[in-house]
Amino acid sequence: MQTLAKSKSEPSFLDAITGPGEVKKLKPAQLVELAREIRQEIIFNLNKTGGHLASNLGVVEITLALHHVFETPKDCILWDVGHQAYIHKMLTGRRNKFSTLRQYQGLSGFISPQESEHDAFVAGHSSTSVSLAVGMAIAKDHLKEQRKIIALIGDGGLTGGMALEALNHLGHIQKNVLIILNDNDMSISENVGGYSQYMKRIKETYFYKDIKKKIDWIEDKLDMVPLDPKLMNLITSVKQVAKDKLENPGIVFEKLGINYSGPIDGHDVEAVINALNKVKDLEAPHILHLITRKGKGFTPAEEDSIKYHGVKAHSLEPTLKEKIEAKDPDSNINKGLTYSHVFTDALIECAELEPNMVAITPATAEGSGLVKFGKAYPERFFDVAICEQHAVTMAAGMAKMGLKPVVSIYSTFLQRALDQVIHDVAIMNLPVIFGIDRGGLVEDGETHQGQFDLAFLRSIPNFTVLAPKDAIELRQMVYSALRNLNGPVAIRFPREKAEDGYLENGIACDFKEIDYKSWQVLKQGKSNKVILACGAMIAPALQAANELDAKINDGVTVINARSIKPLDTKMLQALANEYKDNLHLLTIEEGTSSGGFGSAVLEWASECENRVRVSVMGLPDRFIQHGDRNLLLQEVGLTRKAIVEKLS
Amino acid sequence: MQTLAKSKSEPSFLDAITGPGEVKKLKPAQLVELAREIRQEIIFNLNKTGGHLASNLGVVEITLALHHVFETPKDCILWDVGHQAYIHKMLTGRRNKFSTLRQYQGLSGFISPQESEHDAFVAGHSSTSVSLAVGMAIAKDHLKEQRKIIALIGDGGLTGGMALEALNHLGHIQKNVLIILNDNDMSISENVGGYSQYMKRIKETYFYKDIKKKIDWIEDKLDMVPLDPKLMNLITSVKQVAKDKLENPGIVFEKLGINYSGPIDGHDVEAVINALNKVKDLEAPHILHLITRKGKGFTPAEEDSIKYHGVKAHSLEPTLKEKIEAKDPDSNINKGLTYSHVFTDALIECAELEPNMVAITPATAEGSGLVKFGKAYPERFFDVAICEQHAVTMAAGMAKMGLKPVVSIYSTFLQRALDQVIHDVAIMNLPVIFGIDRGGLVEDGETHQGQFDLAFLRSIPNFTVLAPKDAIELRQMVYSALRNLNGPVAIRFPREKAEDGYLENGIACDFKEIDYKSWQVLKQGKSNKVILACGAMIAPALQAANELDAKINDGVTVINARSIKPLDTKMLQALANEYKDNLHLLTIEEGTSSGGFGSAVLEWASECENRVRVSVMGLPDRFIQHGDRNLLLQEVGLTRKAIVEKLS
Repeated sequence: MQTLAKSKSEPSFLDAITGPGEVKKLKPAQLVELAREIRQEIIFNLNKTGGHLASNLGVVEITLALHHVFETPKDCILWDVGHQAYIHKMLTGRRNKFSTLRQYQGLSGFISPQESEHDAFVAGHSSTSVSLAVGMAIAKDHLKEQRKIIALIGDGGLTGGMALEALNHLGHIQKNVLIILNDNDMSISENVGGYSQYMKRIKETYFYKDIKKKIDWIEDKLDMVPLDPKLMNLITSVKQVAKDKLENPGIVFEKLGINYSGPIDGHDVEAVINALNKVKDLEAPHILHLITRKGKGFTPAEEDSIKYHGVKAHSLEPTLKEKIEAKDPDSNINKGLTYSHVFTDALIECAELEPNMVAITPATAEGSGLVKFGKAYPERFFDVAICEQHAVTMAAGMAKMGLKPVVSIYSTFLQRALDQVIHDVAIMNLPVIFGIDRGGLVEDGETHQGQFDLAFLRSIPNFTVLAPKDAIELRQMVYSALRNLNGPVAIRFPREKAEDGYLENGIACDFKEIDYKSWQVLKQGKSNKVILACGAMIAPALQAANELDAKINDGVTVINARSIKPLDTKMLQALANEYKDNLHLLTIEEGTSSGGFGSAVLEWASECENRVRVSVMGLPDRFIQHGDRNLLLQEVGLTRKAIVEKLS
Repeated sequence: MQTLAKSKSEPSFLDAITGPGEVKKLKPAQLVELAREIRQEIIFNLNKTGGHLASNLGVVEITLALHHVFETPKDCILWDVGHQAYIHKMLTGRRNKFSTLRQYQGLSGFISPQESEHDAFVAGHSSTSVSLAVGMAIAKDHLKEQRKIIALIGDGGLTGGMALEALNHLGHIQKNVLIILNDNDMSISENVGGYSQYMKRIKETYFYKDIKKKIDWIEDKLDMVPLDPKLMNLITSVKQVAKDKLENPGIVFEKLGINYSGPIDGHDVEAVINALNKVKDLEAPHILHLITRKGKGFTPAEEDSIKYHGVKAHSLEPTLKEKIEAKDPDSNINKGLTYSHVFTDALIECAELEPNMVAITPATAEGSGLVKFGKAYPERFFDVAICEQHAVTMAAGMAKMGLKPVVSIYSTFLQRALDQVIHDVAIMNLPVIFGIDRGGLVEDGETHQGQFDLAFLRSIPNFTVLAPKDAIELRQMVYSALRNLNGPVAIRFPREKAEDGYLENGIACDFKEIDYKSWQVLKQGKSNKVILACGAMIAPALQAANELDAKINDGVTVINARSIKPLDTKMLQALANEYKDNLHLLTIEEGTSSGGFGSAVLEWASECENRVRVSVMGLPDRFIQHGDRNLLLQEVGLTRKAIVEKLS
């Protein structure tokens, strides 16, 4: 780290930045130097804290240009997703807190109005910024305020349905919104069409071939005709206009009623500033198309690394890069073998046994580990971009035709497709498997906490909702579900390391069909106290039960309630019969207590002839901050200790 | 009805249609006659049963052409929304059941695979057909089946985010899907941009002005140059190609990688058949753009009514039209004053008191009665097209800037925006009011039953979820919520007539602030039995309680649990204290019992120091068919009678 440390002691523009106002004073050349310092500091910091490296290195110049031209908080900058706002945070008074990034009670890894008035709106999920901008532009006009509303969105985010809904509406109402399209080819898996794809495809369309053929023909003819140079230039310029328009996505936006300029180099800070100044006073909606590169200024492969004085740094990069990427929230490297990996590996092995099984992901192939499946079975793998609604309904169409689609999706992203799950999958009771990753608490914070999935899924008819207690059970659930698929099955697992014992000499256990709708007694006690725990809560439940053996005569029973829906009512009734009116159930889930697994057990108990006492432990009815998952579990009281207290 | 009755006794092509195969045998001229007969029969039938008149009259020729060219069920026709498939039903063996349309246990008003193998997939909500088609096309290729997948979608449906997600993906994977764009200007409120809007807007864009200016300039110059006619023609044709492409939406689709043909007249059956034959064997994705008119062949205003032998019919139309529209499910005329009207009228009156209140609807201005608000306050009314996600997040942006947005949305359509409700509204606890119409059971069937809203909304932090017992309470809730708005408030009401007593000499009662988070004792009993009812279940609860007075000593108490979230725990605790360990609560809601209001009360009871017995009445854990709401309520056991039995 020596070199980086040394670089920090050099005279620094960054040190002089106390607020966004300072950025305005700098000349382009100075901004280029500032950009270099920022990149070094980001790399330096993320090496300690971890975080989204590549996406932030990609927007250094854009962020500087935005703060050079606009004035937050008066002007509103809406960062789509919001994980690329580190530089914005550094420039708006949060640089000194940077060492606490993504730590419990530290700086959020996403945009957060609670942190700063310069953060215009909360963000975390993709494709919301244009809708927010439209709403804010309408509001400022209604309130007669003078502000500029700027929505920054990536080419990946633009594939999201709601972003397209917003563009269509914006084009219609013609409000004063500036959209910055941050176009880098890496925001979605390479096998998915982002806007850049159009430029390749357009050459294949009728229109292009047709008009090009005819223009060429005319040219040949005109060569034979004496025309004054001025006219020839004009014809050339007409062709250029047409060509430019055809080869960038501009016309799509102009069709929508949104004027377009670009594409320009998003890493040329002076060019971006000039482009922003050109459009900043327009009253009509405008989209400025910037081409950027994720990880800009970091990888040795970067063609302009020298310009960034990276030479010395490069010697550090191999190890440094590894370290930082190891902490990238979208990477699982630091987590060793995760549930995501176990899920993907099971799919790959099952693919051989189930020729009609296909896998679908809405742009989370990396995070969910599904990339590996895509390599093994490219023709049976579908990354549909950031399109959760389409992913689910497409899967329903596949299932209706006889395939066995598996939708791999994060818990909070599934919220984007509730209607499709109900309307297109559940009503016809179609055989679709949902592999729900990131179920429960994660370090990312409010927007990413998988706290609602159990509650909303269990109220949907025809659904089976499962939560495996460990990696082996996850593996067997995937296999068993595929073997006996006759309706929708959701398998929900945490963003966690799969505990040891899963692999033996690097090989996972054999597939075995399990009756996952039946619960399992993991620890038999003789007292009236029975713990019904699901998923990741099994471990603390067992620890607590063992600790309680000393305190409670005859000990506590622990049951693996692996099926949240349906409940194992046979086992429940047997317990009720055994303990007469004296049964005390404690349900534990890493999901909201409002309508979740616990309330399902309460519903059963309310119908039970015997009196059954039910206590519910789960996530509270509030949003939960970011930070280490274990700290969060302590905060909400889902720990061995809390369970012991509850039953003591 | 004389004329129509008579027309039915004439020799009929329709009578000869036993299945779609028969349609193939007919010549264009005969199909024109068949179309006339179909329109008469539809008008004749809908006059009895009610139903979607206009949208079905608009697709008569398209439906005939589709069955003339393709072969269902081998080929799959996916009807977006599915309420325009009456003709399809008539041609596929369901004509004889037509008198049962939309009746309990009769023909569904929507597409329904349970009814016929010719219905490829369930439909009810908009914008799903392209996603389904992509999934089915992938499946048929994987299974090596020879079928054609056809997605029919309207210009309104195409504004829905998921349809755009699907187009983008289809353009990328280049699967064999034929999209029929049924472009009529009426599918969404006139003040919203559909695809037709682009054709108007495009003329205002840089590109168009720019290239047009230059082309004109060249022309002038070329006039001065002697060019052979062949070349002049070619130049003209190039201009034509460019002009055509610029003035229809084709290039947008071609940019997406989907080839385009059209627009053509969707009421010229021969032209449609020829167009379909041209594209039916293409392997690449293709979109065929048809221009149609809703209500075609019915309104006197129709320019080609004579061609449809409508003259005699026209004499009947004024009354006939009224009758049929009175039964159109999207109309409230037959329901007199509805909750929807009461809600809208309250908004209009509040708009004067709350200058920063604005109203938003996702293309349901007519059904929700909000059209009236739009006329009263055009600059404060926003119909965003079929874009539920955008509607909610736009509202969040407005609220963040200081407005008081009211989102008027149907219960099942809100399922489209769950993530936006959580991520953009609830996390920041923003003051947005949701007027949730069609809460509970409706006559439309599975896809439209508002059975999940209470369950998923009450598990979202920061939300207040209300259900008024009558029109007056709805009115006061709207007023009170706007007056004290400091977070999201959902007001959920049924698709029902507002009971009498709401208006006095046509004037509604004065606004009065109510503390809607507190429940109300409507009937005080002295027994330990207490009914907690919400919304439309209050009425049967009171009837049951009165009937029970004879059977139960000291009578039953009935409480208006108007706040589903938060619960009135003060009142609940008071009851628990009063009856010690002998309290018996019966909760009644017109929503799913799995995670709904009843389970919220169970959760409270599980924490209560006293023993409280809770019984839950609500909708069962299954989907519910179409038919008269009262018949459906009997089917699911939400009636006075059922309540009496439960407590006897």
